[in-house]
Amino acid sequence: MKFVIIGGDAAGMSAASRAKRSNPGLDVVVLEKSTDVSYSACGMPYNIADPDRDIEELVVRQAEVFRKKQGINVMTGHNVESIDPAAQTVSGTSAPDGTEFEFSYDKLLIATGGSSVMPDISGFDLSVSNQTGIMALKTLDDGRKIKAYLKEKNVKKVIIIGMGYIGLEMCEALRERSIEVDMVKPGPVLLPNMEQELSDAVREELESNDVRLYPGHQILSIEKIGERLKLNCPDISLDADMVLSAIGIRPNSEIAAKAGLKLSVGNSIAVDRKLVTSDENIYAAGDCADAFHIVTGERTWIPLALRANRAGWAVADNVCGKTVELAGISGTAIFKVFDLEVARTGLTIEEAENSGFDPAKVVIKTRSRAHAHPGASIIRVQMIGDKKTGRLLGCQMVGREGVAHRISALAVALHSQMTVEEFSQTDMAYAPPFGPVWDPLLTAANQLLKKM
Amino acid sequence: MKFVIIGGDAAGMSAASRAKRSNPGLDVVVLEKSTDVSYSACGMPYNIADPDRDIEELVVRQAEVFRKKQGINVMTGHNVESIDPAAQTVSGTSAPDGTEFEFSYDKLLIATGGSSVMPDISGFDLSVSNQTGIMALKTLDDGRKIKAYLKEKNVKKVIIIGMGYIGLEMCEALRERSIEVDMVKPGPVLLPNMEQELSDAVREELESNDVRLYPGHQILSIEKIGERLKLNCPDISLDADMVLSAIGIRPNSEIAAKAGLKLSVGNSIAVDRKLVTSDENIYAAGDCADAFHIVTGERTWIPLALRANRAGWAVADNVCGKTVELAGISGTAIFKVFDLEVARTGLTIEEAENSGFDPAKVVIKTRSRAHAHPGASIIRVQMIGDKKTGRLLGCQMVGREGVAHRISALAVALHSQMTVEEFSQTDMAYAPPFGPVWDPLLTAANQLLKKM
Repeated sequence: MKFVIIGGDAAGMSAASRAKRSNPGLDVVVLEKSTDVSYSACGMPYNIADPDRDIEELVVRQAEVFRKKQGINVMTGHNVESIDPAAQTVSGTSAPDGTEFEFSYDKLLIATGGSSVMPDISGFDLSVSNQTGIMALKTLDDGRKIKAYLKEKNVKKVIIIGMGYIGLEMCEALRERSIEVDMVKPGPVLLPNMEQELSDAVREELESNDVRLYPGHQILSIEKIGERLKLNCPDISLDADMVLSAIGIRPNSEIAAKAGLKLSVGNSIAVDRKLVTSDENIYAAGDCADAFHIVTGERTWIPLALRANRAGWAVADNVCGKTVELAGISGTAIFKVFDLEVARTGLTIEEAENSGFDPAKVVIKTRSRAHAHPGASIIRVQMIGDKKTGRLLGCQMVGREGVAHRISALAVALHSQMTVEEFSQTDMAYAPPFGPVWDPLLTAANQLLKKM
Repeated sequence: MKFVIIGGDAAGMSAASRAKRSNPGLDVVVLEKSTDVSYSACGMPYNIADPDRDIEELVVRQAEVFRKKQGINVMTGHNVESIDPAAQTVSGTSAPDGTEFEFSYDKLLIATGGSSVMPDISGFDLSVSNQTGIMALKTLDDGRKIKAYLKEKNVKKVIIIGMGYIGLEMCEALRERSIEVDMVKPGPVLLPNMEQELSDAVREELESNDVRLYPGHQILSIEKIGERLKLNCPDISLDADMVLSAIGIRPNSEIAAKAGLKLSVGNSIAVDRKLVTSDENIYAAGDCADAFHIVTGERTWIPLALRANRAGWAVADNVCGKTVELAGISGTAIFKVFDLEVARTGLTIEEAENSGFDPAKVVIKTRSRAHAHPGASIIRVQMIGDKKTGRLLGCQMVGREGVAHRISALAVALHSQMTVEEFSQTDMAYAPPFGPVWDPLLTAANQLLKKM
């Protein structure tokens, strides 16, 4: 049996490795358009932060290793341009000379990932970024370009367009290199999906690290003036040595759409719990595919690394005849911004309302360590529950310690469809260096109960 | 209505405060034999670590504050010696002159806590510890004595008898003051309830901090020779300026037993889910009372702070007419020992076998941060599940970061009676500074699934 995979990153290579491991006789072909497979995309900002570290460290395994040690036919430089579901073939062109190729498959996995959304700004041209200093960060090659440009041009100042996770992580990375950072975006709020008080804590952290924030500024154009870039808004203009666009990502679902596969939220590829698309021989996994939300039961699109890896495995199991159904995701996401840990899982108030819940909300402030324990800082928790059913719906946290891993307890609770009352009874960890007797999450749940 | 509480620490004062808050007309009397109510007992080692910090910082609220601001009749120096369940009275003697007292109650809460277990060693005499330097640590007054003795005698070396949580926390505290520490106990293993590989990591951490461990040594006698103490074992003898006994605690259930109340595991006071003892007008909560284990459903006795506070609240609610039943505990416990975080929840293999499960076990080693992220250390996880039902049964972890709070996710899973497979599907947090894409707990669950 021939298992063809389009895309050689998290979902694709997870599927390839696991399928080959559980069924060594399987003919596994991976078609990757770039030169890189299996690298830590999320690690890029942290690598870029340190001029002395080689960005190639982020490569987990070379294509050659997959070929030689695992017997997976990894073909880099192979850009799949179309799928013929009736004929069960994929075709495209390969680098460097554009030679056409065609592969037939018994089972196909689309793991094409996502791409950076490009802002619609006059003068924005990524194709000449090596020369102009206009950048985006999604692929390892993007990372290479940024790191090289920072060094070669001795960049002193960067403008980041967008204030999402990647923008904020890159902001910290650049500040670590003592590079000045301006962040600008059209939207009026730093983190629109985050509770105001928590978002304010992030803003203060950014400002105390000398990051200049310009929310609420439409961006009209970028001009190259000598070696500098000038970014023009209706009311202000900013200048820098480099501009990094980080306004979001979109799923690479064009070839799926062209092949007539059903699309879903945000143009992601619709899959069932077995990761099967609307064609029974075609799977999709990773940032290009949708998922069911564990809280709402509805389709959602939250492209994150764990889901990509897990979905890759599940596809491999299903291809190899062991039926696996994925329960869904709760949208757990954490990030670090300077000394702050930021976490969320489940629904926001707005998402809860839009999904037909009747949400109650609480925002609390507690200490990160026990009474009288030195070194404590503040942890802020927002928690929401459904007044109708008592169910826990979501949580957000911000603090200097003890935030990132605590959110996983909430994720488990959401997975179990726990009520706020049940969650408030859980036997969470306590010792003075790690928190108050009543864990911040328990305090939030206890307070939330009073409002339900 | 008259609500009398014996004992003014975590469970007692939680109950008193909450009862008075929800029913201001209630007559709440707290009888506490010592001079202290409401202090952070768990914080004592961390306070003792720093000679410059006043141990009185650990007092959360003075008795006077409870009296004046909350209208709770807190009587310190009142030692309850007997309960008459038929007459609904408690009686005893009060300090300093031994005046007899008697109080009648409508509802009574026994929150007498626990006491240090005293080793049966010739020459061991805590009553003259101020002079001899033989100490135990349970009450704030114990803490005061230790701190004063360390300072006044300029203690350079301490022998700790026992290797449990308190012993280990005190060991770190003393080493922080550059005091030499020998730890000795009759049992052959450092942490007998912990997986060998994890226990070894704790041992290495202790040894690399120059702590000398002497497990497997029976202790025959302690001699005072001049200002020094000599501890004699059959094969070795150790000497020091102070001896700290930390071999465990036992529930203070004598007056309950004398009153004919039913006892439970380890002589703790048996209570139902509403915290009612075998007498319908008498509650028990905190370290003196038992609890139901969330995994086994059986009675257990695991005296820890969160349960004491939670049970105190539940008693208050029940006394005030709002029926509350506590689900139970999973025995979540974390502690810090030098730079190591140690955590457990649920059952050990032995406990699982004794409770009729058919446990499978896995021990894994992962990185604390993502691939290529600087500063990573090792996290070790032991996880066990039941082969018959697929249920998750317990987990232990050791590592330099990211351990303490991660265990709470497991505690929530145990509370939900999750299977290992369900747990393996949860949407846990990931970002490169905080862990690998597959959280150590997910990796452990994935590995464990293969053995089930």
